[in-house]
Amino acid sequence: MKSCQSDKKNIVSVETLKVNGGVPERVEDFLSVEEPLEIHVDGNSDGAEFSRSVAVTMRTPGNDDELALGFLFNEGVIGSFSDVKNIQSKGCNFVGITLQDGLRVESEELDRHSFVNSSCGVCGKKSISAVMDRRKFLIESQVSVSREIISSLPAVLRKQQADFESTGGIHASALFDLAGSLLAVREDIGRHNALDKLIGAQLMLGKLPLGESILLLSGRASFELIQKASGAGIPIVAAVGAPSSLAVELAKDCGMTLLGFVRENRFNVYTGGQRIAV
Amino acid sequence: MKSCQSDKKNIVSVETLKVNGGVPERVEDFLSVEEPLEIHVDGNSDGAEFSRSVAVTMRTPGNDDELALGFLFNEGVIGSFSDVKNIQSKGCNFVGITLQDGLRVESEELDRHSFVNSSCGVCGKKSISAVMDRRKFLIESQVSVSREIISSLPAVLRKQQADFESTGGIHASALFDLAGSLLAVREDIGRHNALDKLIGAQLMLGKLPLGESILLLSGRASFELIQKASGAGIPIVAAVGAPSSLAVELAKDCGMTLLGFVRENRFNVYTGGQRIAV
Repeated sequence: MKSCQSDKKNIVSVETLKVNGGVPERVEDFLSVEEPLEIHVDGNSDGAEFSRSVAVTMRTPGNDDELALGFLFNEGVIGSFSDVKNIQSKGCNFVGITLQDGLRVESEELDRHSFVNSSCGVCGKKSISAVMDRRKFLIESQVSVSREIISSLPAVLRKQQADFESTGGIHASALFDLAGSLLAVREDIGRHNALDKLIGAQLMLGKLPLGESILLLSGRASFELIQKASGAGIPIVAAVGAPSSLAVELAKDCGMTLLGFVRENRFNVYTGGQRIAV
Repeated sequence: MKSCQSDKKNIVSVETLKVNGGVPERVEDFLSVEEPLEIHVDGNSDGAEFSRSVAVTMRTPGNDDELALGFLFNEGVIGSFSDVKNIQSKGCNFVGITLQDGLRVESEELDRHSFVNSSCGVCGKKSISAVMDRRKFLIESQVSVSREIISSLPAVLRKQQADFESTGGIHASALFDLAGSLLAVREDIGRHNALDKLIGAQLMLGKLPLGESILLLSGRASFELIQKASGAGIPIVAAVGAPSSLAVELAKDCGMTLLGFVRENRFNVYTGGQRIAV
């Protein structure tokens, strides 16, 4: 089993043929790396030990520990970083998480969440009720921010998001404090992975719930992203892209503020407008 | 169980607060609908009958039969439309597919592909080998097209893609013939669903393999999209967005032509340039 942690790259360079008006040119182009990551869990379920892969996700290498932790937290397998006894990477594309001896995982829970993936979210659940009836987190944080701070966020993210500039193909999740200062940013070819990494990192730092923060999503806001954000207790979610119908419904149910089409000088408030001072 | 086929909508209208320079206004906004679809299969595996849900996917309602068929084809459960005995929708968000009595599905195959989702693709497989070692389809079609035809495709799609204009949040997969005429287009909030719908529709028409056609993807090209396209025998894939590293590798292995950043006057050829007459 070779160790290749040090080789992990977000971007690879390829030779491509650029075709435009004139003579096609051979140029160097940069691509976002996409590779599978297997998330394996060892633990205790109904008194019996288990050791199984719970997901394979197509992700951009890097921050794999955070991705695995964020995934397990978002799926309700762990509730805090202290539920984890050990994290081990093997080879390039495998993270093994050993749960604390005392932690019991319901076999039904585990089964329900097995083979579920963080790059697409809700998919893979055994039934629609498993998707829709998940724990709903009520956001009670009564913070508020000005419209100027919201409008300032995309430019801060763009400055940080170096990979996108070169490949045009990566998503970011960024966490800001209420004054609009960037706390953390994670990138991935899958939007759900980027958010799992961000939440996993905050989990490791013992920062959850994130009741005094703003999440900026570089793309669209889906149901699953809102579900993950609500699990982390984030009161304000701002998406550069459009929200889906179910994302708006869930945000409303959770008492979350959801903003869409967030650009330099404008944004739309879909729900939770009391947190935006306009 | 209420039937709501006729109520299916791609778009819903919501009231939103538009914040820009001046006084915020209440305006009507349109959102892409996102709802779960459960895909259930009845069939025969190792001599025993089975009846199980194989996936729940977050999709935009509409063309659900095509989505279920395309998903099962892309997962290798069915090889043609004649493998299907019956298709039944129940309620809004459930499609049941009954396989022909004679069709045997390997339990291992079924298990490997179970709880796999079409909105994210490769995720949910039990192991990385299940992801990477899948049947590889060699594209032998020796067709070619001019650069002018490639450059003309995005405008044709945009004209068709009515939903995007109003919501800013939907993906499309479009199939063109070698003269650049649009054959079919399908839209969905998930890029993988859009392609499953497109391929499912062609499967129902008995048109597979699609050796004389061009696939236009409205967004980025991931590994999984290339895998689906190769299974359908499509020789030329043109993406409006960026490809991932693994998408380029797989396209090369399959002998497929992969183009990225396809716009009015330019595109990049990542592999299979022999099919583009420049």
